Amino acid sequence: MTTRIAVAGASGYAGGELLRHLLAHPEVEIGALTGASNAGTALGSLQPHLVPLADRVLEPTDLDTLSGHDVVFLALPHGQSGAIAAQLGDDVVVIDCGADFRLADPAAWAQFYGGEHAGTWPYGLPELPGQRALLAGATRIAVPGCYPTVSTLTLAPAVAAGLVEPDVTVVAASGTSGAGKAAKAHLLGSEIMGNASAYGVGGSHRHTPEITQNLSRLVDGTVKVSFTPLLVPMPRGILATCTAPLAAPLSADDAYAAYREAYADEPFVHVLPQGQWPQTKSVIGSNAVHVQVTVDEAAGKLVAVGAVDNLAKGTAGAAVQCMNLALGLPEGLGLTTIGLAP
Amino acid sequence: MTTRIAVAGASGYAGGELLRHLLAHPEVEIGALTGASNAGTALGSLQPHLVPLADRVLEPTDLDTLSGHDVVFLALPHGQSGAIAAQLGDDVVVIDCGADFRLADPAAWAQFYGGEHAGTWPYGLPELPGQRALLAGATRIAVPGCYPTVSTLTLAPAVAAGLVEPDVTVVAASGTSGAGKAAKAHLLGSEIMGNASAYGVGGSHRHTPEITQNLSRLVDGTVKVSFTPLLVPMPRGILATCTAPLAAPLSADDAYAAYREAYADEPFVHVLPQGQWPQTKSVIGSNAVHVQVTVDEAAGKLVAVGAVDNLAKGTAGAAVQCMNLALGLPEGLGLTTIGLAP
Amino acid sequence: MTTRIAVAGASGYAGGELLRHLLAHPEVEIGALTGASNAGTALGSLQPHLVPLADRVLEPTDLDTLSGHDVVFLALPHGQSGAIAAQLGDDVVVIDCGADFRLADPAAWAQFYGGEHAGTWPYGLPELPGQRALLAGATRIAVPGCYPTVSTLTLAPAVAAGLVEPDVTVVAASGTSGAGKAAKAHLLGSEIMGNASAYGVGGSHRHTPEITQNLSRLVDGTVKVSFTPLLVPMPRGILATCTAPLAAPLSADDAYAAYREAYADEPFVHVLPQGQWPQTKSVIGSNAVHVQVTVDEAAGKLVAVGAVDNLAKGTAGAAVQCMNLALGLPEGLGLTTIGLAP
Amino acid sequence: MTTRIAVAGASGYAGGELLRHLLAHPEVEIGALTGASNAGTALGSLQPHLVPLADRVLEPTDLDTLSGHDVVFLALPHGQSGAIAAQLGDDVVVIDCGADFRLADPAAWAQFYGGEHAGTWPYGLPELPGQRALLAGATRIAVPGCYPTVSTLTLAPAVAAGLVEPDVTVVAASGTSGAGKAAKAHLLGSEIMGNASAYGVGGSHRHTPEITQNLSRLVDGTVKVSFTPLLVPMPRGILATCTAPLAAPLSADDAYAAYREAYADEPFVHVLPQGQWPQTKSVIGSNAVHVQVTVDEAAGKLVAVGAVDNLAKGTAGAAVQCMNLALGLPEGLGLTTIGLAP
Repeated sequence: MTTRIAVAGASGYAGGELLRHLLAHPEVEIGALTGASNAGTALGSLQPHLVPLADRVLEPTDLDTLSGHDVVFLALPHGQSGAIAAQLGDDVVVIDCGADFRLADPAAWAQFYGGEHAGTWPYGLPELPGQRALLAGATRIAVPGCYPTVSTLTLAPAVAAGLVEPDVTVVAASGTSGAGKAAKAHLLGSEIMGNASAYGVGGSHRHTPEITQNLSRLVDGTVKVSFTPLLVPMPRGILATCTAPLAAPLSADDAYAAYREAYADEPFVHVLPQGQWPQTKSVIGSNAVHVQVTVDEAAGKLVAVGAVDNLAKGTAGAAVQCMNLALGLPEGLGLTTIGLAP
Repeated sequence: MTTRIAVAGASGYAGGELLRHLLAHPEVEIGALTGASNAGTALGSLQPHLVPLADRVLEPTDLDTLSGHDVVFLALPHGQSGAIAAQLGDDVVVIDCGADFRLADPAAWAQFYGGEHAGTWPYGLPELPGQRALLAGATRIAVPGCYPTVSTLTLAPAVAAGLVEPDVTVVAASGTSGAGKAAKAHLLGSEIMGNASAYGVGGSHRHTPEITQNLSRLVDGTVKVSFTPLLVPMPRGILATCTAPLAAPLSADDAYAAYREAYADEPFVHVLPQGQWPQTKSVIGSNAVHVQVTVDEAAGKLVAVGAVDNLAKGTAGAAVQCMNLALGLPEGLGLTTIGLAP
Repeated sequence: MTTRIAVAGASGYAGGELLRHLLAHPEVEIGALTGASNAGTALGSLQPHLVPLADRVLEPTDLDTLSGHDVVFLALPHGQSGAIAAQLGDDVVVIDCGADFRLADPAAWAQFYGGEHAGTWPYGLPELPGQRALLAGATRIAVPGCYPTVSTLTLAPAVAAGLVEPDVTVVAASGTSGAGKAAKAHLLGSEIMGNASAYGVGGSHRHTPEITQNLSRLVDGTVKVSFTPLLVPMPRGILATCTAPLAAPLSADDAYAAYREAYADEPFVHVLPQGQWPQTKSVIGSNAVHVQVTVDEAAGKLVAVGAVDNLAKGTAGAAVQCMNLALGLPEGLGLTTIGLAP
Repeated sequence: MTTRIAVAGASGYAGGELLRHLLAHPEVEIGALTGASNAGTALGSLQPHLVPLADRVLEPTDLDTLSGHDVVFLALPHGQSGAIAAQLGDDVVVIDCGADFRLADPAAWAQFYGGEHAGTWPYGLPELPGQRALLAGATRIAVPGCYPTVSTLTLAPAVAAGLVEPDVTVVAASGTSGAGKAAKAHLLGSEIMGNASAYGVGGSHRHTPEITQNLSRLVDGTVKVSFTPLLVPMPRGILATCTAPLAAPLSADDAYAAYREAYADEPFVHVLPQGQWPQTKSVIGSNAVHVQVTVDEAAGKLVAVGAVDNLAKGTAGAAVQCMNLALGLPEGLGLTTIGLAP
């Protein structure tokens, strides 16, 4: 039986990528598509790459529009998801691509986002230990942030196995689509092309507490996380370089073996052949995360690198993966590990 | 029943894109993959985006390897297809992504490619009048060049209807993957990024006679074609700007109506809403061609613009479309009109 | 004696490039810098590449601020230059980088810009026949548009010598900085990278009448101009591909000789060695225009290609060149023909 | 009196950038230009952006060609500089842009480069404590590597003042020109655009021991350096993100003050206003390094970010700065702190 879905926020990058994924999903029917200022506009002028939906007109983001669907995806600015979800029945699966329900700690929410903490929903990273079971049958799911997805998956095997001190440094180079489609001068093509820059330095980026939360779940205590995001001139993709002090002497081979074992059964985490390092291009459009690890003996560090498409496995692909789990469908239905390159 | 396919030249860009398409095709089984200097190498190190084929090892491009398949795709440098095809039985469908069998005129072949003319196979552009029928059941098909595909489809309605003089000017801005994966200094990222350049100026590009051949089929006589290709800093996509003198006064609305009518039944040619102009990003990874047209009254010209992904509808997508027609499968099986954006 | 200059509109791309040029000019002292919404802001946060001016604070664009300078450069949205210039004395050299005073024909102004025609100032393209003399000692100068600069210089030798019919087709691929620094969603890096698009198709771009005006000065009558601008993923540079029907049979060698002769004495127009085609990267940051020409015998066309940096020779470099002429300084003072590559 | 210079290796990126700088230097005359396989070729076809030298023909890299100059710049693959320098008289200033004479430790040389250690020349980073004096009057100078330049300058104030543990993590995102102009498939534009990747991970990059050497000079002992270079899609520029554990509690303000003080008198190190983070675009074409620093209290880390143009201050600009010091000219002669943006 076909699942009827709605997408709230269909004119942005996350919304468009959700639709690209859902159009490829064999078990869904695309229902209402909503927008804020774009309500009333045909999708063809906003997302011209989605030809089959070119004539669909955006509706307002309200209960009338969103009710009557089996699954509602929210791709909205943070702060808006709670009110909408409260209106939708408990039998509706609500999958939030925003940040509202990711953090368990109200203090962290207050510090990084401000305002009242909306609450916590099951966290949509099935690759975390024990997490897949929590998503089966869930009707409310918080899709992880893009940086936390790749940072967590790149570090988890080392952290969980105690190979490194709970004190990690993540420098993540991101494409620009993570910053959204709202017009901002510093995101103009003229500014971005030929340019690499750092932002949110010193632990101020909002994804920092989410990475901390994920990694700390893996150990007894809190993992210290130094997180620096970079903006580099590409539209999609994140490359996360993760460095941590070795807890004890460790060979590169043993580090590699630990990663291979940790992800042996994960369909979407691909540990590359030893010696081959991730590149974002290999995962563009795909739900795969590519990971590699080694040891720097002279520096006493484990270094792991991960690549993800921030809009796919980093957002929309994860959302579909979560929907599949919530509905009891095969986890990978409609998803791919094949990237678009070159 | 599953169709068993082989790809000769699986390590290049066309080969990789063929595999990306074929992995998404529900009716094929991927058999032998071959390479020249890369024979013996695992595909995972050459095409790391094709995760499901990462462990497949390239074999030599020879009869032993290629025999026993229902369909053989050739993605080889020109000049090599004829000898291979001659060895494969007439019951094997051979689809050549190279230039060897595209040109009907031996003199044009000699002038632009040199050496002996291999012959002419059914030309794999089903959108040309009458061409679809020729591809049904064909066992030898020549996939069109990327520039000819978009140039022909962007101009065909105007030329065929006699809206313009048979004297067209095409300036086509292309991404770099059309130039292939062989290492050349002028194609280095350092040279390409931030740079636009012209090449093959003055009618010397090898796709010129192919465009001429296609357009001349539509009229009684020869269409003069001025073709200038540009290299612009993007990996994929071609944007063709096509200008021709009006044959008689014509309104923009009438020009548009002619294009809509011409392509009303074509699944992969998408005439955009009037006033919306094509961009390559909308067709990346897709088999769609986006087209728009208008009239410049002051200059007395019809101006039409088309966008294509040179590797998809411009090569591998067209090849799969042709395979579907040859085998009697639904023409669009395994193909998409959805692009990857942003 | 040092010339004291002011720049109105110092926070935009044209303003920033003017300052980059003026900082390299040995005979000027940089006085007032003005902005609109950015008045009161330190330049260091707006133009961080201009380190020597980092602590300079923008002032409002008004008479108080701009008076007391020998030369005032205007880098403002069109429609604002006239009122400011009227307030400045006739002894002040006013150089307008905007469009207000470029077009001689009020009807063309009304059609393409709307509103009242401000008038016509000496046109700052000294390479046009007879134009250099008009700029010597001028106190009001209209700097040409970026597309008209490269289109005109790429076609002028052929048009002036009657080598081609007065019926030209220009397709010009531009970087994004020509669209300015105002935040617009379609100019976001996420939209621009990996994307080529056409805009202003069908003769509707505002630079069309300016190209027509320039080329028509060279002949007895009006030159028909079909002009299509493209946006390609690079921050700077324009590559103009110019095609025109041959007026009579012509060899490529003769076309080339005509270009070499036409520009033999021009310091900033560089006709490349025969067979070498322009690329925008060679002229980035420089005041040079690179040009090449050939003949397509089969198509009966002359094809010429030109490259310019839209912000340098296309705007700020031309402005400085004009200032030098106006003040009787050596024409190339503070300017360079050396590009920044790779 | 004019200084007569030669450039060995004028066809590569470092050589081209040396010439771009030297053409802007008021006190030098450009003598012999040499190449290896490109000897006999006009520079105009190899470096078309250097218009004033377009007709200069490359000569072979040998003693005959290089003798008779006051200064010889070597921009050669490593391993070649020693033999050439040995032939040039002690009165000739030889400035090596390669790696041969940078490392003091033969064991480090053997481990990272292999073969015999050529020796050690004065290290051309005048911003290191005491180093400027060693360069005055020197006749042999080793120009630092690009990564070591920015990494060292970004960390030096913190390391030298003991603000951090001697245990640093550097992740440096680089443009592609640092990889040179030799044709390699993984550096093709098609591979690079839209792609971020890591390489030389785990301490294996050749610049690692150079960074270690520089930072260890500032303390009593050895600084542990974890260095990971990234390749990101831009032609020029390096952004180095440097993280180190705080040695003791430290405020962001105090860290900033330490940086400002450390670089108060350095003409080419620009500590940005507090809160403004470096971007590579601001330093393209310039000899400036932009630096910013903060403290991440939760993670217990100092985080500093630096930006440099790998070809300018990272290579050719540094070489000219060193030449100025060697010859007793003003240190900044012919150099600029102004970048080319956008």
